[in-house]
Amino acid sequence: MSTEDIKHDDQTAVPARRKFLNTAALAGLAGAGLSVGLSACKQEAAAPAAGAPAGAAPAAHAAGEFGKYEVAPGQLDEYYSFSSGGHSGEVRIYGLPSGRLFKRIPVFNMDCLVGWGITNESKAILGTKADGSLKYHTGDTHHVHQTYVDGMYDCKYMFVNDKIHSRLARIRMDTMECDKITELPNIQGFHGTFPDKRDPVDEKINHTTRVFCGAEFSIPLPNDGNDMNDPTKYHSLFTCVDSESMEVRWQVLIDGNCDLVATSYDGKLAATNQYNTEMGAHYQDMMSSEHDACLFFNIARIEEAVKAGKTRTYGSSKVPVVDGTKAANQDPKTALTCSVPIPKNPHGVNASPDGKYFVCSGKLSPTASVIQHDLVLKWFNGELKEAREAVVAEPEIGLGPLHTGFDNKGNAFTTLFLDSQIVKWNVEAAIQSFKGDKNAKVVLDRVDVQYQPGHGFTSMGETKAPDGKYFLSDNKFSKDRFLPVGPLHPETAQLIDISGDKMKVVADHAVYSEPHDSIIVRRDLVKTRQVYNLDEFPNAVKDAKESGVFRNGNKVTVKMVSQAPSFSLPEFTVKKGDEVTLILTNLDKVEDLTHGFAIPKYDINFLVNPQETKSVTFKVDKLGVYWCYCTNFCHALHLEMRSRMIVEK
Amino acid sequence: MSTEDIKHDDQTAVPARRKFLNTAALAGLAGAGLSVGLSACKQEAAAPAAGAPAGAAPAAHAAGEFGKYEVAPGQLDEYYSFSSGGHSGEVRIYGLPSGRLFKRIPVFNMDCLVGWGITNESKAILGTKADGSLKYHTGDTHHVHQTYVDGMYDCKYMFVNDKIHSRLARIRMDTMECDKITELPNIQGFHGTFPDKRDPVDEKINHTTRVFCGAEFSIPLPNDGNDMNDPTKYHSLFTCVDSESMEVRWQVLIDGNCDLVATSYDGKLAATNQYNTEMGAHYQDMMSSEHDACLFFNIARIEEAVKAGKTRTYGSSKVPVVDGTKAANQDPKTALTCSVPIPKNPHGVNASPDGKYFVCSGKLSPTASVIQHDLVLKWFNGELKEAREAVVAEPEIGLGPLHTGFDNKGNAFTTLFLDSQIVKWNVEAAIQSFKGDKNAKVVLDRVDVQYQPGHGFTSMGETKAPDGKYFLSDNKFSKDRFLPVGPLHPETAQLIDISGDKMKVVADHAVYSEPHDSIIVRRDLVKTRQVYNLDEFPNAVKDAKESGVFRNGNKVTVKMVSQAPSFSLPEFTVKKGDEVTLILTNLDKVEDLTHGFAIPKYDINFLVNPQETKSVTFKVDKLGVYWCYCTNFCHALHLEMRSRMIVEK
Repeated sequence: MSTEDIKHDDQTAVPARRKFLNTAALAGLAGAGLSVGLSACKQEAAAPAAGAPAGAAPAAHAAGEFGKYEVAPGQLDEYYSFSSGGHSGEVRIYGLPSGRLFKRIPVFNMDCLVGWGITNESKAILGTKADGSLKYHTGDTHHVHQTYVDGMYDCKYMFVNDKIHSRLARIRMDTMECDKITELPNIQGFHGTFPDKRDPVDEKINHTTRVFCGAEFSIPLPNDGNDMNDPTKYHSLFTCVDSESMEVRWQVLIDGNCDLVATSYDGKLAATNQYNTEMGAHYQDMMSSEHDACLFFNIARIEEAVKAGKTRTYGSSKVPVVDGTKAANQDPKTALTCSVPIPKNPHGVNASPDGKYFVCSGKLSPTASVIQHDLVLKWFNGELKEAREAVVAEPEIGLGPLHTGFDNKGNAFTTLFLDSQIVKWNVEAAIQSFKGDKNAKVVLDRVDVQYQPGHGFTSMGETKAPDGKYFLSDNKFSKDRFLPVGPLHPETAQLIDISGDKMKVVADHAVYSEPHDSIIVRRDLVKTRQVYNLDEFPNAVKDAKESGVFRNGNKVTVKMVSQAPSFSLPEFTVKKGDEVTLILTNLDKVEDLTHGFAIPKYDINFLVNPQETKSVTFKVDKLGVYWCYCTNFCHALHLEMRSRMIVEK
Repeated sequence: MSTEDIKHDDQTAVPARRKFLNTAALAGLAGAGLSVGLSACKQEAAAPAAGAPAGAAPAAHAAGEFGKYEVAPGQLDEYYSFSSGGHSGEVRIYGLPSGRLFKRIPVFNMDCLVGWGITNESKAILGTKADGSLKYHTGDTHHVHQTYVDGMYDCKYMFVNDKIHSRLARIRMDTMECDKITELPNIQGFHGTFPDKRDPVDEKINHTTRVFCGAEFSIPLPNDGNDMNDPTKYHSLFTCVDSESMEVRWQVLIDGNCDLVATSYDGKLAATNQYNTEMGAHYQDMMSSEHDACLFFNIARIEEAVKAGKTRTYGSSKVPVVDGTKAANQDPKTALTCSVPIPKNPHGVNASPDGKYFVCSGKLSPTASVIQHDLVLKWFNGELKEAREAVVAEPEIGLGPLHTGFDNKGNAFTTLFLDSQIVKWNVEAAIQSFKGDKNAKVVLDRVDVQYQPGHGFTSMGETKAPDGKYFLSDNKFSKDRFLPVGPLHPETAQLIDISGDKMKVVADHAVYSEPHDSIIVRRDLVKTRQVYNLDEFPNAVKDAKESGVFRNGNKVTVKMVSQAPSFSLPEFTVKKGDEVTLILTNLDKVEDLTHGFAIPKYDINFLVNPQETKSVTFKVDKLGVYWCYCTNFCHALHLEMRSRMIVEK
């Protein structure tokens, strides 16, 4: 590859910057091949002095130019954006085009506002140690994807992974709360996840029933202290979770490891890109081969093998594991997996909305590989000589291509990490070009983003009905784009209008780390509830008359209700040494009338939404008077909304 | 009071809404006097169907109308807004007018992104139990205020309270990180806080040296199980903390309790509004009196009394407490405190930028009381017959007046919780009217906000140089203003342009609960650092060559550095049963190049900013291989940035 091979159609906007970026990036590539990459260091854009006039920023615009994307007071956004929060451990709901943050959904993190990790109900979902304390307080959410019906969002559930502790969480989308978390056995570095879109065999099941999970790190199986010093014996598993029960159905032993995951619209295939097929344990060993791969899983065959008992288990896990390694799958006609060679270190695989292609990008190669879905199926039927023949295009699109979104006109939009650009290219033109058509216009447009984009995605682009309106670029560095706030910068999610021929960056949304990945969903598809039903909670205190302190030895249950602006027990008495379970039902019925309950010095705070019940359990270890109070402003006399816990000897 | 007494100058905009609001609110007031208030229940604005066209919202605007307030891509905001995050336990940094969230500063909450509550350094600030686990995971931040020099922000420190566990935290503003937390003794419900602005005696000390803290809940002193059932014996203390050492200097025993806190520009007075002077323990007892009060503290006299040893202590606390109760302060000429009667249940006291007045609002009275600073000083000199004579105006401004901000033209802007409005009124006109001038035009404008505002504040309004540009209304309910996201709604911070005669709501910023209180600071005043200095960290690993595993019995220190895209130890070996302290220094020097470090199954994740050092300590209790990885995207080969922890028998 030479620097001339990389075409840049639009270098005029900020020429100095573009020149610098390309030079630096290519210098890295031309070097040892190991020090590749424009890390943040290379780009010496100093933060602006806060006192500099706003107009001095490099890309100043006339006021009002972006009025079209304005969501004025009283107006509503057109789209929801559901976004993973990276190592904040949470999921977030934004509005688009405004970029307003509507909600943080605590998932793997503690959230002392709602009491996530504090209430008994949330602890049961998160999991606890023998002593009742939380098993984990950290998490690293990477990918949020929804359940499907017939290739469209049904907005029933979202799924999100935790890379640190290899957990899959589910969020119910009526209340936008996490309701289940499953820890996957015998894997590390659970990175990519995607629900299936229909059943591979039963045509009547045209909706999501499985969630696929890729494991990025290989480990000894089981990871019990054996084979630790021989990384060639490490393995990785690809996991299938039942979307309803959230139980692990099966796992597949593979060569190499998994990164991102995509699924086909016909339910037959799941795919994962593999960047370290060398199985290197050290950095430099991870890029010794010439190719990596995109690995396809034949779901129907895997489930037949599971059914036929061609399985084993590892350690204490009962999950059946089938063998998907090359050695065990020599004959394509019976193979469980198909490995399609891809240029080095791919970090993304995405299914096109027409169901025809997967696009897989190699971050050390300036290309995007287009893999044709029906050719992979042909390989599984023994009708293809080499799996590589399923690659029908491999356009050079720019440096550091990662993730690809799609519009409704056959175009793909790929993030270029090194170039700090989004590139728009046409899939069919790329296929024609690959066939030899020198007139095929593959790359249609480029736009600079600020800076180093990771994931990018289009409005409705993960369904069969993308609408070609917006692309959101989740960038890893913001540098000089916002007022400085100390060593930890925000990141940026930049909104790009893709409805015309030229892409246009229309908004910089500052994001607390990390805007890892998102989906953009038309607002009319999302149906939420604003008020719970008392009957949803078996322990609900349905009437203020049921309030009181109920003692059973030193186990004490305190039942209480909230109704603005008071709690049903103005005071309650317990004894030092008691184990108290306090149950609070919010009898207020009107939406948005949420109450909080805090107990000073006892480290308790949680919320109860309208008609919701929550409980906490704690040891009473301090004498005295403790003013419990409503922490969520509810009424003009909110400050007076208290209960007094009296702790006697 | 009759309904006719309440003037509404601007009821034309959305007449039905205004009529409804007033009727409902007044119905409450006319009732028992106890069920006052327009709680969220009363206002039956259903959430819009998500599918409704955006234009159908009640106050739709022509696209582009707000271009003036647009912060286009590449432009920078004009102001910082530093905001308490309520029961999320954090502090937030926003840009204005954009409303972009630049940073969450974890303070009393755990934050698994940066490792707050996970690193040894943050645990030392937060405080731990004997077993090394965090003492508290919850907090309720209410008020953020900065240090001053000569009545202006010096942007050195911010202070924020925790109402749940009565702690004061300090944030250093160069790095925007919390560096100290102090738990205040013998109080509960630490609500209001404000730094002083100069020394009351030494004119050379024209900057902040003290932080005053009000306690809202009265408790037995000490709270050790005595006097629990006789609330008349409960007490509240007003606390002074040293702004540099963060040690508690002194406390004052008072009648009633404290709510918000304000300080005078001359350093002589601190003030707190008191809403439950009855000392009622039950809701209905808290509003039996006709008046509550604004209590003033004579700082110089209090410190003389402390110096003279006229103090006592409570329980195990060594903090000297002086007696500020009425009974002990009968003679104004020697009194430590001055109680100015104010209409019922005030919930706000603010100092005017000219240093002349305090404005204190009673939420059960439609009035704002203007208290003249030099008249309070006169009372302390025995020159005023009654403290009430210091009240020089008490205009009727609307229902549920809470907090007041000021512009640079002598106008005050008060949030009206019940009316869901901001009212603009002129302070001097109010004084003239109070004197009998029937032509004085007191109320100048009103604007509806959505809905139920709590705190409100103007740009630079807490300094001697407000600029009269913006007012931000932190609202407690958003109801129908944003796309629905389930039972827990966002709240709103509405930006209002106050530069003209008429106020204009120009942006709805959605906020994760709770936008409790903020300050708006001109950007040129804030000077941050983007890169640390290695020498700031005594345990820094200054060279990759210092890396290694250092064993002392079963105490093991692992030293490591990060430099994109690798950690200096590709692997390290420890033994089951070890207590490992892992120290990581980020040797990358360029701003925004932050690395993360996660250890799977060991519940570790934290960040190291450029040139920063952090450490974690954990028990090694599981055999096997654990792939530590960089969680903060740093480089094209970020995914390859790992270290392997091998745990042997």
